[in-house]
Amino acid sequence: MEQDFVVGVDIGGQTTKIGVVDRKGNVISNAHVIRTDSHTDEMLFFDDLTKAIKSVVQETNTTGKIKGVGIGAPNGNYYDGTIVQAVNLTWGGRKTIKVAEILTNKLGLPVTLTNDANAAAVGEMTYGAAIGMKNFIMITLGTGVGSGIVINGQMVYGHDGFAGELGHTTAVRYNGRQCNCGRVGCIEAYASAIGLARTAREYLESNIDKELFNQSSPLREVVGPITSKDVYLAASQGDGLSKKVFDFTGTKLGESLADFVAFSAPQAIILFGGLTKAGDLITKPTEQAMNENMLSLWRGKVAIIVSKLPESDAAILGASALAW
Amino acid sequence: MEQDFVVGVDIGGQTTKIGVVDRKGNVISNAHVIRTDSHTDEMLFFDDLTKAIKSVVQETNTTGKIKGVGIGAPNGNYYDGTIVQAVNLTWGGRKTIKVAEILTNKLGLPVTLTNDANAAAVGEMTYGAAIGMKNFIMITLGTGVGSGIVINGQMVYGHDGFAGELGHTTAVRYNGRQCNCGRVGCIEAYASAIGLARTAREYLESNIDKELFNQSSPLREVVGPITSKDVYLAASQGDGLSKKVFDFTGTKLGESLADFVAFSAPQAIILFGGLTKAGDLITKPTEQAMNENMLSLWRGKVAIIVSKLPESDAAILGASALAW
Repeated sequence: MEQDFVVGVDIGGQTTKIGVVDRKGNVISNAHVIRTDSHTDEMLFFDDLTKAIKSVVQETNTTGKIKGVGIGAPNGNYYDGTIVQAVNLTWGGRKTIKVAEILTNKLGLPVTLTNDANAAAVGEMTYGAAIGMKNFIMITLGTGVGSGIVINGQMVYGHDGFAGELGHTTAVRYNGRQCNCGRVGCIEAYASAIGLARTAREYLESNIDKELFNQSSPLREVVGPITSKDVYLAASQGDGLSKKVFDFTGTKLGESLADFVAFSAPQAIILFGGLTKAGDLITKPTEQAMNENMLSLWRGKVAIIVSKLPESDAAILGASALAW
Repeated sequence: MEQDFVVGVDIGGQTTKIGVVDRKGNVISNAHVIRTDSHTDEMLFFDDLTKAIKSVVQETNTTGKIKGVGIGAPNGNYYDGTIVQAVNLTWGGRKTIKVAEILTNKLGLPVTLTNDANAAAVGEMTYGAAIGMKNFIMITLGTGVGSGIVINGQMVYGHDGFAGELGHTTAVRYNGRQCNCGRVGCIEAYASAIGLARTAREYLESNIDKELFNQSSPLREVVGPITSKDVYLAASQGDGLSKKVFDFTGTKLGESLADFVAFSAPQAIILFGGLTKAGDLITKPTEQAMNENMLSLWRGKVAIIVSKLPESDAAILGASALAW
């Protein structure tokens, strides 16, 4: 049997990554990256993207063997293949862009699109830790907190295609942190990389908690704004204050996960993204808080798993999986 | 074509209701009720139930025309037809009871079982306000708060059959009310009939809010513990304090609904049960709080609908719908 392939496209705010992927989830092309933010006109960006896709297909000698193109993008809607009001894209603005239609016309290939976190969930189900799982929730812990929900073996898109915005459920109802979405108290404002760094700064700068305020920490020596990486490095070298930052972050996340479990009773929750590099520092307090906050019937029964996809390729793999 | 029928059985803590239902959702039998709590041995209860089902089938001349039996029960598991650790049933206790298997053997009919709120959702989808809806969430506001979730036209049962425990998601994370489930701050402790009555008592008795503490109200004349019905009667006669109780209850409920929408992006939320008799008193603050707490993309787009099933028959109809 002749082998077939798909193209995975990960559209991010700054760059867009393109790869050719085989049935087993191997990215067979070299790294192909174009700028997302070099245009304010989406049609010029899609010209660039079309050229890049054609070039990567040519390089891998897969012309005629490509089954389709899968795209992960911010505010991507699976139902109609559009990107809707993606304020993080220079050409996204307040519009609805018919991405699947535009690219299908340019490439002559079927194009499927969804948001980045949903793509990650499909990738995990196709090639990763969720193979064979019918009910799981994917949580992406990056700059923001995203989610992809799988129930009965199907992605949950909801009535309008925008289901699974768990990063914008409420972690702290009153006096919560301001979130980028304009609302207050979202779990994204606590369990994202930005939220974690913010917790560190609050611990260092606020004198509400005298003990934390007076505690010595290598974080006090950091020049410029503290990042999640600074906190990770300090915590992995044994810094107590940085560990407390991870404990707080994991506790907030675990409390939210407990509520998600009450919704769909998943077999597992799969964590993906930058913060998961911290390993036990983040997963232990998350798991503990989740179990403490769930109905007893689920305690100890819902696994927390870190994604097994190679991080460099995960976004491309996730997007590509849509195309099968 | 000869007409066919199903039997609906609603197992409650005190009584169990049985009815024969046609394809259109008419309960064609007279009211049949047996005690649930007259036995501590489940096998004796199922003997009673079998007799009652046979008798109602005979009375309606539907022998041989019954397609199956659908049962709604506390802690009912759809996957294996069991009732698990139903502490509210005198014969439930800490056991797993193979209800579907026991009754199939006794009746020679297929028996399907799920929990009461899921049955209500199936009923709404089959005969009620959710006909044709593929994505909705049913919230039952009774003694407790239950839920049934429909996604892509399918009931959500989750990995273990116990999905949809939205009454036990967290409405108030810190210093929340004690819930019957043993945890703290569940929405059930606020938006159930019991929660509403508790809010009224807090308003009357606690002097934290001086204004409420000093406000006159017919509730102050109630002899014995205040019930949700007392609050409804007072509010519908214009009592300001009772209206504030409904506002608070609806606000808490709406805040939680906003998070549920972020999960599954439903077309509508359907409210069912005792509290919905209060009409606008409860639905208005609920709708307002839901819209204020959602991501802007959903504001004004998710309908809040009160169940259209006749309340006397709704539980039987919901259970019966499982059997089709």
